[in-house]
Amino acid sequence: MRSNNLILLKLGGSVITFKNKALTPNMEVIERLAREISEALEAQPFRLIIVHGGGSFGHPIAAEYGIASGFKEPTQMIGFSKTHNAMISLNTLVVEALLNNGLPAFSLAPSSFIVTKSGRIHSLHMDALRHAVELGFIPVLYGDAVLDYDAGFTILSGDQIVSKMAIEFKANRIIVGVDVDGLYTADPKADPNAQMISEISIDDLKSLMGRVGGSRFIDVTGGMMGKILELTVPAAMGIDVIITNALKPNNIYRALKGESVVGTRIVKGWR
Amino acid sequence: MRSNNLILLKLGGSVITFKNKALTPNMEVIERLAREISEALEAQPFRLIIVHGGGSFGHPIAAEYGIASGFKEPTQMIGFSKTHNAMISLNTLVVEALLNNGLPAFSLAPSSFIVTKSGRIHSLHMDALRHAVELGFIPVLYGDAVLDYDAGFTILSGDQIVSKMAIEFKANRIIVGVDVDGLYTADPKADPNAQMISEISIDDLKSLMGRVGGSRFIDVTGGMMGKILELTVPAAMGIDVIITNALKPNNIYRALKGESVVGTRIVKGWR
Repeated sequence: MRSNNLILLKLGGSVITFKNKALTPNMEVIERLAREISEALEAQPFRLIIVHGGGSFGHPIAAEYGIASGFKEPTQMIGFSKTHNAMISLNTLVVEALLNNGLPAFSLAPSSFIVTKSGRIHSLHMDALRHAVELGFIPVLYGDAVLDYDAGFTILSGDQIVSKMAIEFKANRIIVGVDVDGLYTADPKADPNAQMISEISIDDLKSLMGRVGGSRFIDVTGGMMGKILELTVPAAMGIDVIITNALKPNNIYRALKGESVVGTRIVKGWR
Repeated sequence: MRSNNLILLKLGGSVITFKNKALTPNMEVIERLAREISEALEAQPFRLIIVHGGGSFGHPIAAEYGIASGFKEPTQMIGFSKTHNAMISLNTLVVEALLNNGLPAFSLAPSSFIVTKSGRIHSLHMDALRHAVELGFIPVLYGDAVLDYDAGFTILSGDQIVSKMAIEFKANRIIVGVDVDGLYTADPKADPNAQMISEISIDDLKSLMGRVGGSRFIDVTGGMMGKILELTVPAAMGIDVIITNALKPNNIYRALKGESVVGTRIVKGWR
């Protein structure tokens, strides 16, 4: 299938949930984002796959049972399943908000069609997902507790899913909605001189990230580093990647329409 | 994988929900069945895959939007997704009841790894399901709204899933929990002379079912015919099939342990 005109939209767990309150969705934001997506699609049609994070749904249970470190004892199996169930319940809220706005959203469970190997997507079966996109559905996936051929099980991040799907579908654009404005030269919460980077090449990113720890050139706190590492692969293939603040109204709407937004673009670049 | 000592357990929608009350689970039965499964597994270990039906969760929404007749207009897409969401919410109740009994149940969404063609399972990706079984999980699947290569989408019955999985895994036994005692010579609710059939060969079944309509030899009301048609395939391959009343305590417990129960056995048989 030629999948031009397809956008991958990531909605961060810290956007759609209250990060510090267990199992608490941010319904106001979820509903606003559903409206923004609906309005963007009304303005101009495009294909869309949404992937969301876990926030206060997936993470606390996964941490309690040590799911990310793999299968070490049988009691973890209960926690693995509970992590997945928590993600299902968050996913249902997102899908229902989209349905309520007339959008043909459809839930797909990553752990039902993906098995990882040492944490990386290894077995991936796209038939249902591809057919859903072809029929005009908006598949809604999520970071999930998945089975792993080496570790037994692990946590598969929404960022890895987004990047993989963007590559598989030859997406035009990846929009990553987070709870900050973009990438900064330093932690903006700690350093008043921190500046947002509006555009950065992959090479500059890699060179800066090699200096993480001692570096003051780029902020990779709050899980931003893992996110960036995932996103460099599709960016290197020429897929537009834009990181923007989804807590601020209209950023996602504008980014979906291809308009410029405050945020960080990752661009392909050679030295 | 050699999957001996594996049982496929089907729990009918009319067992785990109140058929005539929309979106109403029968929690008492769900919890009792979870206990029976747990006790049977304590008595002797075996591998287990559970598939449940939709009852008053899936069917009313699927009927309202005509999902089983395929994709004819865009408004159905919302109904397709809502049918799936209703099944997810029923599935979560079943999985949680099993988890609460210490069982490593794990939800898998059939529509995420199965695509049908004219209503029959066509694309089937078993990697996640197989690995779950190998690790000792109890996968819990369900009749689902699935995508279809010919019709756009359709309803995939739990009975078709059970039969297919039993064949794929070379299961030892299929136990089908329903809300009647077994197959009858006539509708037991209408005919006082109706007799339960405790054992029937595939050939006798097929010959009797060819006469459906005028026949008084076998009751195929209440969706029993579709169920039987699905189950004859694994039965013909030598897989034990037993239909029993899951509303009556201890039938599922006894059937899981391989003990005799009131019900109908379908046995392989040639003329």
